Amino acid sequence: MTKRFDTVAIIGVGLIGGSIGLGLRKRGLADRVIGIGRRQSSLNAAFSVQAVTETTTDIALGVRDAGLIVVCTPASHVVASIRAAAAAAPANCVLTDAASTKASIVQSLDQDVANGLAFVGSHPIAGSHRTGPEAADADLFVDRHTIVSPSAATHPDHVKIVCEFWNRLGSQTHTISAEQHDQILANTSHLPHVVAAVLAATTPETFVRFAGTGWCDATRIAAGNPTLWLDIVQENRTELISAMEQFGHRLSAFEKALKANDQQTILDLFEQGKQRRDGVGN
Amino acid sequence: MTKRFDTVAIIGVGLIGGSIGLGLRKRGLADRVIGIGRRQSSLNAAFSVQAVTETTTDIALGVRDAGLIVVCTPASHVVASIRAAAAAAPANCVLTDAASTKASIVQSLDQDVANGLAFVGSHPIAGSHRTGPEAADADLFVDRHTIVSPSAATHPDHVKIVCEFWNRLGSQTHTISAEQHDQILANTSHLPHVVAAVLAATTPETFVRFAGTGWCDATRIAAGNPTLWLDIVQENRTELISAMEQFGHRLSAFEKALKANDQQTILDLFEQGKQRRDGVGN
Repeated sequence: MTKRFDTVAIIGVGLIGGSIGLGLRKRGLADRVIGIGRRQSSLNAAFSVQAVTETTTDIALGVRDAGLIVVCTPASHVVASIRAAAAAAPANCVLTDAASTKASIVQSLDQDVANGLAFVGSHPIAGSHRTGPEAADADLFVDRHTIVSPSAATHPDHVKIVCEFWNRLGSQTHTISAEQHDQILANTSHLPHVVAAVLAATTPETFVRFAGTGWCDATRIAAGNPTLWLDIVQENRTELISAMEQFGHRLSAFEKALKANDQQTILDLFEQGKQRRDGVGN
Repeated sequence: MTKRFDTVAIIGVGLIGGSIGLGLRKRGLADRVIGIGRRQSSLNAAFSVQAVTETTTDIALGVRDAGLIVVCTPASHVVASIRAAAAAAPANCVLTDAASTKASIVQSLDQDVANGLAFVGSHPIAGSHRTGPEAADADLFVDRHTIVSPSAATHPDHVKIVCEFWNRLGSQTHTISAEQHDQILANTSHLPHVVAAVLAATTPETFVRFAGTGWCDATRIAAGNPTLWLDIVQENRTELISAMEQFGHRLSAFEKALKANDQQTILDLFEQGKQRRDGVGN
């Protein structure tokens, strides 16, 4: 496997951006990894864990020599960062992102892509309830799935470059429309987060000391960053509302069955849940 | 610490009964541990992992020499097992159970206790999504909480004996009324189980391959035994319905806020969830 990039610029050096930098450096996939951010303190942290080789708070300066730019900011900042980076990037530079919602980003940039912007949206499904470059892991993407979501106008070569980038960090890639991506993630990530947060918030404080491993597992993701999750659920509100409605229907059916002492309906629901959960292993 | 019992009888040798047996034997707390059950195959499994020293399918025979009897059957069978065991037990024998609901059991046996039955209900808050004596662990109760729920008529000496029993297996004990126990567990265990099962069942099968660690954590307990959980939710239906209503109110408020783009309410909910979850550590 040959080295693919002289210079990669990473805008936003938190857990994901930092892990991309570490992953590139560990595998010798880039000579220079430029960390770009708004706060020098985060950039310093990324530099000190060796996730990046250089840092700057100036996007135009940071992307000047980049062959690839990866935007790892919160979802609501991605479009502006992509446009600012593209304006200063070299002619052949390809751009992608790592946000956990895709439709609003990809749709916002559709016209830019039709006009020649070399952007392909992506979402590596990997993470941690820990945040920041201190939690970065060179192998965060290994054996994980990354969804890559081109627009109708995206050049196939750009899709190929972005898929290869994630493949070389150890991830499997799947090319799926931004809309389908958001429907999947509403069910597999955003709904679970909301449910975990509501479950944790519903538990009376004085009862928590008696929580066992079940409660701890079921609510673990509720420890995630509230501001970040506000951003995510707003970006994907339509699909999340739809997933919440599906969840609500099933929960109401269970409650009705419990009140009516309808054992078969209760058992069926537990069986369905077990079957779906057993499908993925521990 | 001196040895406390010549003979302990355990009725129901699954994960909990098996772990009690192993814990007693590892710590030299009993000379004989009699495993009593309906299926010889489970008894053989408990014997082969050395959780019990003798086995029998005959309750009367098994409890004949017992100083302590622990009933570890599903909740709905506890009352009948306690009565059958008490009828054949020696005069000074103390009885307890390990079921995860308490009010219906303790209330059913209230009159028997008033008439001299040496029974004290208990619930060790420890477990695993694995089941059976093969998953038994001598240290399952170490550093865990056990709730002990006496009736009004319970003799204080019996409470003391039962608390000491759990303490010697490594558990902290808390004397709490059966009704309060059921309210706590509805929130910390039974509601999380229902929510996890509904969440898993709601996820479309083709999306599950894209599930990340968040979904896996949030749904892990949905892998539990459906028949066992049917028993638990039925035994504690009143408190569980109440907890489900609290959960439902909060979930509806979140959905309404999401539809209305009410950022502050969304953020408040995420903050509350995080605060409650951060209180218990990882």
